[in-house]
Amino acid sequence: MTLSTAFTELFGIRHPVALAPMGGPAGGALAAAVSEAGGLGLVGGGRGDLGWLDRELAIVRAGTTRSWGVGFLTWAAQPSVVEHALSFGPTAVMLSFGDPAALARLVRRAGVALILQVTDLAEARQALDLGADVIVAQGTAAGGHGGSPGLSTLTFVPVLADLAAPVPVLAAGGIADGRGLAAALVLGAAGALIGTRFLATPEALVDPAAVKAIIEGSGEQTERSTVLDIARGVPWPRRYPARALRHPFVSRWQGREDTLAADADARTAYADGIEAGDWPATPVWASEAIDLITDLRPAADLVTDLVEQAERALRPAPRR
Amino acid sequence: MTLSTAFTELFGIRHPVALAPMGGPAGGALAAAVSEAGGLGLVGGGRGDLGWLDRELAIVRAGTTRSWGVGFLTWAAQPSVVEHALSFGPTAVMLSFGDPAALARLVRRAGVALILQVTDLAEARQALDLGADVIVAQGTAAGGHGGSPGLSTLTFVPVLADLAAPVPVLAAGGIADGRGLAAALVLGAAGALIGTRFLATPEALVDPAAVKAIIEGSGEQTERSTVLDIARGVPWPRRYPARALRHPFVSRWQGREDTLAADADARTAYADGIEAGDWPATPVWASEAIDLITDLRPAADLVTDLVEQAERALRPAPRR
Repeated sequence: MTLSTAFTELFGIRHPVALAPMGGPAGGALAAAVSEAGGLGLVGGGRGDLGWLDRELAIVRAGTTRSWGVGFLTWAAQPSVVEHALSFGPTAVMLSFGDPAALARLVRRAGVALILQVTDLAEARQALDLGADVIVAQGTAAGGHGGSPGLSTLTFVPVLADLAAPVPVLAAGGIADGRGLAAALVLGAAGALIGTRFLATPEALVDPAAVKAIIEGSGEQTERSTVLDIARGVPWPRRYPARALRHPFVSRWQGREDTLAADADARTAYADGIEAGDWPATPVWASEAIDLITDLRPAADLVTDLVEQAERALRPAPRR
Repeated sequence: MTLSTAFTELFGIRHPVALAPMGGPAGGALAAAVSEAGGLGLVGGGRGDLGWLDRELAIVRAGTTRSWGVGFLTWAAQPSVVEHALSFGPTAVMLSFGDPAALARLVRRAGVALILQVTDLAEARQALDLGADVIVAQGTAAGGHGGSPGLSTLTFVPVLADLAAPVPVLAAGGIADGRGLAAALVLGAAGALIGTRFLATPEALVDPAAVKAIIEGSGEQTERSTVLDIARGVPWPRRYPARALRHPFVSRWQGREDTLAADADARTAYADGIEAGDWPATPVWASEAIDLITDLRPAADLVTDLVEQAERALRPAPRR
């Protein structure tokens, strides 16, 4: 049995696994490793830093002969930046968080596959209207940013699969092992988009202390909040809080976000805390599924392990 | 292929489906119908009203020759009530929400199978220590009461399956069709405990207006809150909010629960709203998965449909 789906067929790839384009950590080496292993590697273009993009897109292009892509934050990325990324010849561009209409048209005009990530049914309907080739249903267990209140992956995926058919849906949020990948498939998804699990790879561009915290942490120690974005002065739309490991600055300000936004001294205290080493320079974005992440593993091995475990989970034998 | 698991073997039943013992709606007729159809029917003993129990346990006992059980709210049920229920000869007793130590010992002494529902890993460890025969991992998509902050079913089930093995785990919360049942199994659960979907059956003891609201509603219209318990004067522990269809009284008081608890006039306004027909007498408890509930169906047909759809979802063919 192989896990061939509408998603693997669309991109001519072997495995129904996509790397979440995590802005920062998902650089060219990680994306290339995932693509070479048979998945779809997506570089995390984030808000669209041109220097970073030039470097990482050159790395992924040189690192794989297979399908690869790049993702952007819809609310932040400039059309010129997306156009620049398109000049590197990606197979797909993924857009997340915000109104994707303008950027989506640009991607489609270039004849490049359009992947739209959605966090509720209204966003899903818009994604279908815009002609998305793949829709990512992101549930609330996801690490990093996501929709609020949002829907859990388990309930969002089958509802969206029904709504979107025949457009393939990827499940995202809370998937960190092959059982989660198998669950995505039986729920009606054509694959899984996986983020946090790929942070614990040597290829990820991430602080080793963050990886250690993820490997040692539990999903119960994560929480969703907009506090750290406000503290960092990053203009994320408030409707997309982020899931991260518990943080003393969040405990202090949760529920008083407006006050924090208006309080320059408090935001200075956040920067001072970083300076003093009281907390990490970047929040440790983490999925609720981190209990399942217990080791650092090369991305290629991870793809293979995910698929093999999913195949075992789907085999009827253990259930007789 | 049949969906035989450690759970079905333990109770000598055909299908890995249990009826959630919803206090009130899950009466004897519904539990008997689920058991007769090959699942495990659990009567919803709730806080332990003796008159209700006597009637409904007599109905389930007369209605099925197969395994059946009864569930109680741990924080509310008196030992004498559980002992009384045991005199009806259930195969299993399920305990949910609160410290189950005392009642669990009573159930085990009677030689009856003990099912403990848990909402986090600390509760899970205690359930294992108490010798649970089955552990229910309840995720936050569940309708009605659940743990806060809790974990999503997709991430909680595999973590708990690893922790509890070889004790069988049931997945609960957000499962309303066969795809969800199949997902539970591949995640490592030995079956699914299903609540809200069984409200839309002729056997459920529930207001037809609530069923209509569930059939027409969407998971995005549900929210978790303790406001309605405070308004109703029901002493639920605050750490167990309940998911219900959106309610104007919740919108008014969410975030000001302590104030509401201290404000007798506000609670009178809630009762007056019921009197005036502004809102239903009982909140419409509803899972986040209600988009998948589109019809009223006899419980026996539902069990059959759930299992057939799960088998189709698990069949390798559609994925080639």
